[in-house]
Amino acid sequence: MRIIRNSVPSRDGFYMPGEFEPHEGCIMIFPERPDSWQYGGYAARRAFVQVAEAIGESEQVTVCASGAQYDNARAALPPHIRVVEMSSNDAWARDYAPTFVRNAAGEIRGIDWGFNAWGGLYDGLYFPWDKDNQMARKLCDLLNVDVYDKRDFILEGGSVHVDGEGTCMVTESCLLSGGRNPRLTKEEIETVLKGYLGADKVLWLPCGIYHDETNEHIDNICAFVRPGEAVLAWTEEESDVQYAMSEACLEYLGNATDAKGRHIRVHKLPLPKPVTVTEEECRGLDACWDQPTRIPGERLAASYVNFYIANKSVVMPGFGDPADEKAKDILQELFPDRRVVQIYARDILIGGGNIHCITQQIPAGRRR
Amino acid sequence: MRIIRNSVPSRDGFYMPGEFEPHEGCIMIFPERPDSWQYGGYAARRAFVQVAEAIGESEQVTVCASGAQYDNARAALPPHIRVVEMSSNDAWARDYAPTFVRNAAGEIRGIDWGFNAWGGLYDGLYFPWDKDNQMARKLCDLLNVDVYDKRDFILEGGSVHVDGEGTCMVTESCLLSGGRNPRLTKEEIETVLKGYLGADKVLWLPCGIYHDETNEHIDNICAFVRPGEAVLAWTEEESDVQYAMSEACLEYLGNATDAKGRHIRVHKLPLPKPVTVTEEECRGLDACWDQPTRIPGERLAASYVNFYIANKSVVMPGFGDPADEKAKDILQELFPDRRVVQIYARDILIGGGNIHCITQQIPAGRRR
Repeated sequence: MRIIRNSVPSRDGFYMPGEFEPHEGCIMIFPERPDSWQYGGYAARRAFVQVAEAIGESEQVTVCASGAQYDNARAALPPHIRVVEMSSNDAWARDYAPTFVRNAAGEIRGIDWGFNAWGGLYDGLYFPWDKDNQMARKLCDLLNVDVYDKRDFILEGGSVHVDGEGTCMVTESCLLSGGRNPRLTKEEIETVLKGYLGADKVLWLPCGIYHDETNEHIDNICAFVRPGEAVLAWTEEESDVQYAMSEACLEYLGNATDAKGRHIRVHKLPLPKPVTVTEEECRGLDACWDQPTRIPGERLAASYVNFYIANKSVVMPGFGDPADEKAKDILQELFPDRRVVQIYARDILIGGGNIHCITQQIPAGRRR
Repeated sequence: MRIIRNSVPSRDGFYMPGEFEPHEGCIMIFPERPDSWQYGGYAARRAFVQVAEAIGESEQVTVCASGAQYDNARAALPPHIRVVEMSSNDAWARDYAPTFVRNAAGEIRGIDWGFNAWGGLYDGLYFPWDKDNQMARKLCDLLNVDVYDKRDFILEGGSVHVDGEGTCMVTESCLLSGGRNPRLTKEEIETVLKGYLGADKVLWLPCGIYHDETNEHIDNICAFVRPGEAVLAWTEEESDVQYAMSEACLEYLGNATDAKGRHIRVHKLPLPKPVTVTEEECRGLDACWDQPTRIPGERLAASYVNFYIANKSVVMPGFGDPADEKAKDILQELFPDRRVVQIYARDILIGGGNIHCITQQIPAGRRR
């Protein structure tokens, strides 16, 4: 694995492909830490296994497990899913795994962004995050791909979406947060995104999902389903604090054009009714930084937008909500060539994210 | 990775190729434990890096490092050598990594033998050995090859040599030791070797190198250089305890024929003068099981036979002994198509083995 420090992907002809383009595989991490995952992570691991199995039907899934959880992961997962030992501080592959870029010849490289647990000592979610921050480089070495060193710029994979045709989509609430790159201006951040993702235009949605502790990652509120077309998490409840947030995003997108000059066709994806954490669930969570991780009644950032687009399926969360089916039907219509698989994901949501957050695609291409 | 429990390699048409046949790559482990490697392993790691670089000139080397040593390993090794995180109890890749077998179609599979630190609670060298024993399976999963489960049979890779044409070579002192498979007869052990290595004949040398704490592994005393031809560690010092041991092996080989009915041409490879551990070296070793790991003046099992046959080179140890050059010349003559590289290996030898012990070849072939 060559570490590239003196160039940026776009200068070398590399760009990040859309998630809907063909994948070689998918990276996940086996969940373990008892302040993120209730009751020792038993329920979360079951849900993660279901996600891995669903994705594994059409691509090679690699699950990273700690040394302590290796045997358990290997026993819980079917043989066609690969388990590798790799330590991490938690299980958010989207945010620690490399962002993969590809060039016209099909060569794949990775980007190793800095990671500071969604805000470092400013408003991050745990400490330390050293093992998470090692993962991108470890994975590039494992996969035999070269890696761009961009550890001096804090970014999580879940905070960017691309259409693979020059458009990148982020939220201001996250990318301009005080805990990431506060010394850089919006323009300077945009320059990094363009240079590393190979994008010509950055769309800045104002915000994400209410109480999303990632400072409102884009991948929980809005996602491209193909170039020129996106889904947006939506509620009809005007009294809900989310209403104004989704509306602000819709308004922004209504006035925006993408890198190709297209207006973006936005499909509203309903939100489930507010999901809150129970007393029973809180009792099963260890304290983090000697504080309770969650407080009974706390609202979780549930959203159907947090899905993963696999080669032959779309793997989306369900919450046992009446809107589950409607959201599934909408996605099925938007992805006619893929089977939409809905997985009951409350046990992932309690950890603070969902199916897109725990997965990272490796685009199809040529490795060294 | 499929775990195969209901068959054996030979029944499926698989056999272990000779080490001199083409390799895809080589597995090594970054040394770390302070009761094996003096002064925190600094000198050992330097020597391992030299071995990895020498092998890496003609094959893909993968070095396994613990989470704690990952960054250090990555920094110490050149970019074309792959570093993966994998925990172990020590650094003897030959003995923990899978034995790889291949079939006529070129498919590669691994064998996961049981490992108990060279004798378990009977006369093993450390405790516990759980992480070592996980490695074969982890490596097969990493490499995407199926694995034969033979954990109920204790065997180290360094205790067998094959010619790839049906002959397997072992020592009685090791294979019949009380700490490995004491409930099996010699005939039963032979049946396992034949079934798993795809061998038709097992040659039982009586012993190995004096004071070799592996119960005298074959790979320190005798090695095939090609089918029908082997090198044997040899001393002309009749007063040395090793003299009778080497002579007994020579006599055995003189009367033996291989699986193809050939007499084996034996080349004597001189031994260096006895190498003993110094007071200074012992001061740099942590205690193991609250005993000193080594005692000043203790004889180490130095032997030039402990070399690795890489695709385009033979990587052999040197000890700063007058015989270094002679041994190198002999090997160079026996391997006219490969460059013999001699690496000063005292810092590996102190750990209890040498270059062959810290490497495991992956034969060229087709992975799943």
